[in-house]
Amino acid sequence: MPFTRIMLRQNYPEEKLRQLSKILHQALTEEFAVPAEDCFQVIEMLPASQLIFNRHYLSGTRSEDFVLFHILAGKQRSIEQKKNFYHALSRKLFAKFNIHPDNVMVIIQFNTAEDWSFSGGRMYIPEDLC
Amino acid sequence: MPFTRIMLRQNYPEEKLRQLSKILHQALTEEFAVPAEDCFQVIEMLPASQLIFNRHYLSGTRSEDFVLFHILAGKQRSIEQKKNFYHALSRKLFAKFNIHPDNVMVIIQFNTAEDWSFSGGRMYIPEDLC
Amino acid sequence: MPFTRIMLRQNYPEEKLRQLSKILHQALTEEFAVPAEDCFQVIEMLPASQLIFNRHYLSGTRSEDFVLFHILAGKQRSIEQKKNFYHALSRKLFAKFNIHPDNVMVIIQFNTAEDWSFSGGRMYIPEDLC
Repeated sequence: MPFTRIMLRQNYPEEKLRQLSKILHQALTEEFAVPAEDCFQVIEMLPASQLIFNRHYLSGTRSEDFVLFHILAGKQRSIEQKKNFYHALSRKLFAKFNIHPDNVMVIIQFNTAEDWSFSGGRMYIPEDLC
Repeated sequence: MPFTRIMLRQNYPEEKLRQLSKILHQALTEEFAVPAEDCFQVIEMLPASQLIFNRHYLSGTRSEDFVLFHILAGKQRSIEQKKNFYHALSRKLFAKFNIHPDNVMVIIQFNTAEDWSFSGGRMYIPEDLC
Repeated sequence: MPFTRIMLRQNYPEEKLRQLSKILHQALTEEFAVPAEDCFQVIEMLPASQLIFNRHYLSGTRSEDFVLFHILAGKQRSIEQKKNFYHALSRKLFAKFNIHPDNVMVIIQFNTAEDWSFSGGRMYIPEDLC
């Protein structure tokens, strides 16, 4: 149920976008209780003048590799899940994509199940309520 | 008071964008208690590699016609209003725009009246409080 | 901790984008309790057919200069702070950028500190809790 907007300065080719998308989705399924099929993302590539960030605020040094993940999920997660997810995403991005952890920023928002319609004009009904 | 971001893979010409905008706004005014003049939207057209969705999760089959509506509104709506809105939007899109209901996804968020300034540097004051 | 998306119809050159970014950030630091270094923004420039707004709803007359600020902040602000921020942003945009207050719209959302990871795979820990 999450929908994520990924914002970048780098103008990655399609193959890199696919990798990035997969890494995020892996972290979400492993640490954020997201079903494997539940994958909805937008990737936005912006020139430097349109993606503005402070180089050092609460980080080491951000570079042109900066990536901002803005996630909207349909039900709350525990502090533990959030911590584990932040850590897993950052670790995977470094190991598999060579993005330094200083360059990884994440923002999460939550709404409720009734605020989602996946298709067919039907409100989403959580499976554990079926 | 809603602001909606419409995300698409299709690269529609202006006339089609106008139709899409109108269909959404009609569904909002008819089923979501939105005033006729209260129309604020962004339409984002993205290549396939930048709008990523699962083809089948909680749907029949999604295609390149997939459209994702992300709505932010200034006051809560009832479950009944949400259900009716999802249904009306999906029905109108099929009847007037030939988008199959499998391709229509909607996400809603809410904040409060004081979180909106429409113009003039003034906080929005709900009419029923005037 | 705020992240702001600025949406425009005007296709401003980089120097104007820098000014716009600075004006917003000044209003945030002066009236919205935002630290000077805490600056994260996206600027999105859209053709008229993709940034749709009503010309008069709760405003005088909107023109092609219309600008919509969508702000997400990590902790609530008081009604007074919100009022002062709306006013300061509108005033500065008119004085320094010549955008008429009729053209300035602002929407704010809030989440919580634990919903932010600025870098390093670490959850944000508010300074006053350290």
